[in-house]
Amino acid sequence: MVETVFELRGHIIDSLILSRVFGAIMDLGGEFEILEFKIGRSKTEHSYTRMRLIAEDDHKLHAIMEELQKLGATETTVKDASMVEVTMAGVAPEHFYSTTNHQTWVHLGDDWVHVEGTEMDCIIVVDDGKARTVPMGKLQVGDRVVVSSNGIKIHLPERSRSADVFEFMSSIASSEKPTETLVGKVAQAIRDVKDRDQKLVVVAGPAVVHTGGREALAALVREGYVDVLFAGNALAVHDIEVALMGTSLGVDLKGAFCHEGGHRHHLIAINTVRREGSIAAAVEHGLVKDGVMHACITSGVPFVLAGSIRDDGPLPEVITDVMEAQDAMRKALEGCGLVLMLSTLLHSVAVGNMIPSHVKTICVDINPASVTKLLDRGSAQAIGITTDVGLFLPKLRDELLGAKGGA
Amino acid sequence: MVETVFELRGHIIDSLILSRVFGAIMDLGGEFEILEFKIGRSKTEHSYTRMRLIAEDDHKLHAIMEELQKLGATETTVKDASMVEVTMAGVAPEHFYSTTNHQTWVHLGDDWVHVEGTEMDCIIVVDDGKARTVPMGKLQVGDRVVVSSNGIKIHLPERSRSADVFEFMSSIASSEKPTETLVGKVAQAIRDVKDRDQKLVVVAGPAVVHTGGREALAALVREGYVDVLFAGNALAVHDIEVALMGTSLGVDLKGAFCHEGGHRHHLIAINTVRREGSIAAAVEHGLVKDGVMHACITSGVPFVLAGSIRDDGPLPEVITDVMEAQDAMRKALEGCGLVLMLSTLLHSVAVGNMIPSHVKTICVDINPASVTKLLDRGSAQAIGITTDVGLFLPKLRDELLGAKGGA
Amino acid sequence: MVETVFELRGHIIDSLILSRVFGAIMDLGGEFEILEFKIGRSKTEHSYTRMRLIAEDDHKLHAIMEELQKLGATETTVKDASMVEVTMAGVAPEHFYSTTNHQTWVHLGDDWVHVEGTEMDCIIVVDDGKARTVPMGKLQVGDRVVVSSNGIKIHLPERSRSADVFEFMSSIASSEKPTETLVGKVAQAIRDVKDRDQKLVVVAGPAVVHTGGREALAALVREGYVDVLFAGNALAVHDIEVALMGTSLGVDLKGAFCHEGGHRHHLIAINTVRREGSIAAAVEHGLVKDGVMHACITSGVPFVLAGSIRDDGPLPEVITDVMEAQDAMRKALEGCGLVLMLSTLLHSVAVGNMIPSHVKTICVDINPASVTKLLDRGSAQAIGITTDVGLFLPKLRDELLGAKGGA
Amino acid sequence: MVETVFELRGHIIDSLILSRVFGAIMDLGGEFEILEFKIGRSKTEHSYTRMRLIAEDDHKLHAIMEELQKLGATETTVKDASMVEVTMAGVAPEHFYSTTNHQTWVHLGDDWVHVEGTEMDCIIVVDDGKARTVPMGKLQVGDRVVVSSNGIKIHLPERSRSADVFEFMSSIASSEKPTETLVGKVAQAIRDVKDRDQKLVVVAGPAVVHTGGREALAALVREGYVDVLFAGNALAVHDIEVALMGTSLGVDLKGAFCHEGGHRHHLIAINTVRREGSIAAAVEHGLVKDGVMHACITSGVPFVLAGSIRDDGPLPEVITDVMEAQDAMRKALEGCGLVLMLSTLLHSVAVGNMIPSHVKTICVDINPASVTKLLDRGSAQAIGITTDVGLFLPKLRDELLGAKGGA
Repeated sequence: MVETVFELRGHIIDSLILSRVFGAIMDLGGEFEILEFKIGRSKTEHSYTRMRLIAEDDHKLHAIMEELQKLGATETTVKDASMVEVTMAGVAPEHFYSTTNHQTWVHLGDDWVHVEGTEMDCIIVVDDGKARTVPMGKLQVGDRVVVSSNGIKIHLPERSRSADVFEFMSSIASSEKPTETLVGKVAQAIRDVKDRDQKLVVVAGPAVVHTGGREALAALVREGYVDVLFAGNALAVHDIEVALMGTSLGVDLKGAFCHEGGHRHHLIAINTVRREGSIAAAVEHGLVKDGVMHACITSGVPFVLAGSIRDDGPLPEVITDVMEAQDAMRKALEGCGLVLMLSTLLHSVAVGNMIPSHVKTICVDINPASVTKLLDRGSAQAIGITTDVGLFLPKLRDELLGAKGGA
Repeated sequence: MVETVFELRGHIIDSLILSRVFGAIMDLGGEFEILEFKIGRSKTEHSYTRMRLIAEDDHKLHAIMEELQKLGATETTVKDASMVEVTMAGVAPEHFYSTTNHQTWVHLGDDWVHVEGTEMDCIIVVDDGKARTVPMGKLQVGDRVVVSSNGIKIHLPERSRSADVFEFMSSIASSEKPTETLVGKVAQAIRDVKDRDQKLVVVAGPAVVHTGGREALAALVREGYVDVLFAGNALAVHDIEVALMGTSLGVDLKGAFCHEGGHRHHLIAINTVRREGSIAAAVEHGLVKDGVMHACITSGVPFVLAGSIRDDGPLPEVITDVMEAQDAMRKALEGCGLVLMLSTLLHSVAVGNMIPSHVKTICVDINPASVTKLLDRGSAQAIGITTDVGLFLPKLRDELLGAKGGA
Repeated sequence: MVETVFELRGHIIDSLILSRVFGAIMDLGGEFEILEFKIGRSKTEHSYTRMRLIAEDDHKLHAIMEELQKLGATETTVKDASMVEVTMAGVAPEHFYSTTNHQTWVHLGDDWVHVEGTEMDCIIVVDDGKARTVPMGKLQVGDRVVVSSNGIKIHLPERSRSADVFEFMSSIASSEKPTETLVGKVAQAIRDVKDRDQKLVVVAGPAVVHTGGREALAALVREGYVDVLFAGNALAVHDIEVALMGTSLGVDLKGAFCHEGGHRHHLIAINTVRREGSIAAAVEHGLVKDGVMHACITSGVPFVLAGSIRDDGPLPEVITDVMEAQDAMRKALEGCGLVLMLSTLLHSVAVGNMIPSHVKTICVDINPASVTKLLDRGSAQAIGITTDVGLFLPKLRDELLGAKGGA
Repeated sequence: MVETVFELRGHIIDSLILSRVFGAIMDLGGEFEILEFKIGRSKTEHSYTRMRLIAEDDHKLHAIMEELQKLGATETTVKDASMVEVTMAGVAPEHFYSTTNHQTWVHLGDDWVHVEGTEMDCIIVVDDGKARTVPMGKLQVGDRVVVSSNGIKIHLPERSRSADVFEFMSSIASSEKPTETLVGKVAQAIRDVKDRDQKLVVVAGPAVVHTGGREALAALVREGYVDVLFAGNALAVHDIEVALMGTSLGVDLKGAFCHEGGHRHHLIAINTVRREGSIAAAVEHGLVKDGVMHACITSGVPFVLAGSIRDDGPLPEVITDVMEAQDAMRKALEGCGLVLMLSTLLHSVAVGNMIPSHVKTICVDINPASVTKLLDRGSAQAIGITTDVGLFLPKLRDELLGAKGGA
């Protein structure tokens, strides 16, 4: 029998972490002894526990500690992280440590060094006493990569007990919640993130335009609530189609009828912008006079339009190489405090993969399965609101700007 | 070879009826010759065609005519309807004619007699020169029942070309329509039905309360827009739960958090009303001071609460025998010009089964499958709006009453 | 400040109960001191804790204990349960205790008396030293009813760590699981329940017939796997429609095409059975020769057909009064060890409301929202499998009977 | 008033084309006179009509003819197509004609010239008497592009009346169809396309692996039923994850439990393949011994893996530039007679955009909304089967290969 001692601290009972720790030990055939156990008496007080972990052999002990480490446990006698050099570009050494989306520290020398760029499913590269996450494809020959989970410490986000939207809602979407009240909570979360001087990133699918939420989103951009917009070709095309012809996918947004010949409208929108050279040029030349893209350009709000295989055109600003698009998104996500995902599963999952678990995430979709998929992919912090984005956005605008604000 | 001559008249091309007539003849192995063919030149002008139908034998000719008759075709040489007497209560004679939900006439003597009470899947009973639909279970010994489809004429509703909501929308629900615009169209359809002095029947599920649409619906009841309310025990219980405790299924509608002990609230609501003896008494005694049921009772709007096997309690007004509940609904549907179905599949299908195809029907549900099921059950006139009833109802109220109207 | 001492025992850490206990105390403003704390070292060993609970006043202490009691906590100095007499039939006294779906004991004299008939949202009636649950509507004048939560003890089911289907699956349905493997697990769960001599209750919706799962379900009935069948009029009608005409809702099950005239088939099926007087008679007279209802009748498997407002006919065996139908279901559920819910939300929720939380429940539906709704209504023990019942049932039959078994 | 004469021929009544022609004329304010009208008497006989179209002015006449032309109408006095030269690469001249997904001819000189590469939303380039579709982004300076709809003729596919799966099913997905029967129909459609020496293209999402349909699909590839595979990084990664570790997204496919550490498995799969240099190399080196990708490589079945912004890695064969991926797909689609879309909306819509309307398309998804979206995007020929791909594929394999075939 071999053993080690580890400690855990934080809202480990509230957050169910302790339960998962016991579960993991038992499932993997270990035993434990509680050495110290102190339960936080109030909402803000942390709990703390120190335990002895016993296992049959080193291999088993290591496997268990690897799981516990992912739950935030740290061995009290820390070994330094182990590193191996990359010998083939874009390929990690065997036994590479793959990151979670939780904040992470690597033990180097006598210090816990924070890993820059919290992002799940990445590799940790250590260089000159600093550590950072690197996507596998960007590993370069000679990079020193952390292997195994020795000397790794992570911090799980705690479900706060303060009265914000992220506390009262379980993450599972239900369509049986008072929607107007939820909109008010989202508005408050947005005000909070602006008060903390963090960025609000909006990820939007074309349904924002089709369902008539476009003007409300544009107003939020213009009024400074949106700091970054992520979308695909389709959102921008249909947004511009409305600006040019009043239709989205050929459906008149004011009358809700189909235009004869309307099937061509999105191609005309694309062709018009391509002729101008860029969306920015089409706005500057006065062709595109309103809408989401117009608001971004005139208000200087950066956007990333990522390409997909179903794109027509595409618009000039669309990044057709998806790995480049990922890089652009990663960069734009810096300083982000809240992500609002609007009716787009693909982009939402992509963003969910890139953001740390402490970045609050709200996913609004008429289909409850979208939230479930997002959670299945590891974005456990996301909360879902099952509603119609075409009514949600105008209501959100009214909450933030007043009923007249965005008209 | 045997033959007959039939005629068709109306918007038979627009409404795709002619295509289905040709299809039916060919599918069933008949032949035809066009004797006369006149196409309406304008939106309001009817088309007319007279054809000779040829088939191998009488049996085949009859089978084809039975299908054509359901599409509105009438033989030019009409035989009288055949009738057989009921010999066992609640059981129809063999070969009974089962009704569609289209307006129907029976040929008796030299006249086309209109069948009272258009309702699908019923039996036609003829009595003293009059004809009426009767549900199978209500047939009485001695009733004279129409058998086969001889001497039956039906009138298919025509998709009008006027600019109302029922024209521009195909019946298939999509969540990619401009929702605010659609709300405007529904408001107009409601105003139109009131202008025609017809009833608006609202069928509502408990999600109306859970999602926060309750006050808006209550306002529409108070302001005279709703003439009849159909619901189940659950809607009424949760509506009264809000009135008594501010929660729905234990969730606070203003704060969206779960009340400790809130799981008991719906039982307390039921018990309170049972103690008073009825919802009406609870309203009169001042216990229930707002909400949908309060509005119905104080404004004299009739309601039918139909029981289901999942009911707790139930509330005193709930009709626990489903056949009795059906009768109460049938009676309340008289004079109905528009049905608005809100987030309830069971009650919507039940009502869909009872209304004639010319009664306009709007089904609002966050789940597009609800509309599909309604259509699959024969309510082809229904149009679906895929949205969140918790935002839809407040918006509809604002459209009808002005933004201040229901506050 | 007032205080009390309570204890908790069981898999309180695994089952997250401890976390919820701490959460409840803090949320409601109490304080606590841990007097004893013993953690089960293995999968089968129980944990135990004894704590002092401190609150501002008696009212608060009581409110907190009421919540803790629902989590399985018991005060070490137990007071007897309080009782009040019913003075109005069908109405509970104020402050009535409403039951959970967990096993419950009432403290009477010096004993913990087990409450017969575990069912949620019921009232506890004590009579002659015995306690039983009673639905509110059945309370009679003079019944002695438990009020407040004093002297109540409940036992939360523990998520077992043994290798059955109920452990490995979280309760949330996902369509991204290996379906064939899950079918094998369900088959094993069915074999287990039969080995324990408990009943398998199947709750089935009409989609079982429409999607072609009928023959497989009939085989499971015939081979003794199904002990009770719950359904509505629609399942039985369409099952008999197939037996008589080969169609379900007019769609040919072998060819998948629509029969001309097929819309009448379900009415013919109903009328035929009504003429015979009952389904049983129609089977005995040789009219209905196969299918689910045939299997129930020829194998002596009891069934309850509960009425709903959308029913045509209905068939003679359908119980049209929903409260009577509930009683019939309650009775049939005695001795049930496993419920298999197949594509029917209404009946599933109804059954979910009636069964104790220790009765294992599997809900199979192509729509993941059905499981979510079931869980929202309190059936936390249910696990969901998102799949097509038309392929699931044949596969399950092959697993249980061998590939040839049900052909 | 100006006028022209046009003709229409084909199954114009069955296919509802005639109804739409009359509708379009009336909606756009034209008038018409029927000059000749001949209705096909049998399932195979075509109908024919010649009409005079009258409108107020040339502009209106042209607008109406443009709509009619999309319905297959051809003016009897044909003018040649008009062409304009491209002056800016990737930008079409104003009034460019945008293609439908129907077979198209351009009138040049005295001939109707068939346009190569039927694909919707493209531009027609004429060069040396030949015409071909070109995506907007690939237009080059000097290309001669068809503008307006003069001299364009298209051929709408006719809904055949023969007994294949594409006739009996309406295109709207319903989960209430006999699934086993439908699988048989799909098997027959596959056999038919192989008999006609056309390609079967399979478009597959990762749910094929997660739900356990992987071995069945691999068997269909090995046995020569699949000619081309389209997928994304995720399908290939999870397929290879199963080959290497037995899990998909960390879930064991045989036991359906989550592997401890399983979240890393997909990264290990990606890293392993990247180290080998390609999927092909990983297969050849014996690392990947079974599954869908293994079957493609060992059987020489070409595949296109298109990148998306949510990709990890990606695998070496993934085409990260989406426009390049589109080109690869276009090329692979040549000679395709049937597309089978399995649980992937993004790739299905992409392929739907590229294939002519006469290529039969079957979309299998557990979510009925996927089919609706596909149809909304113009793939009107697609039929939907709402079922679980994890049970559908094994059943399909058994139908095609016999119950033992793919084991």
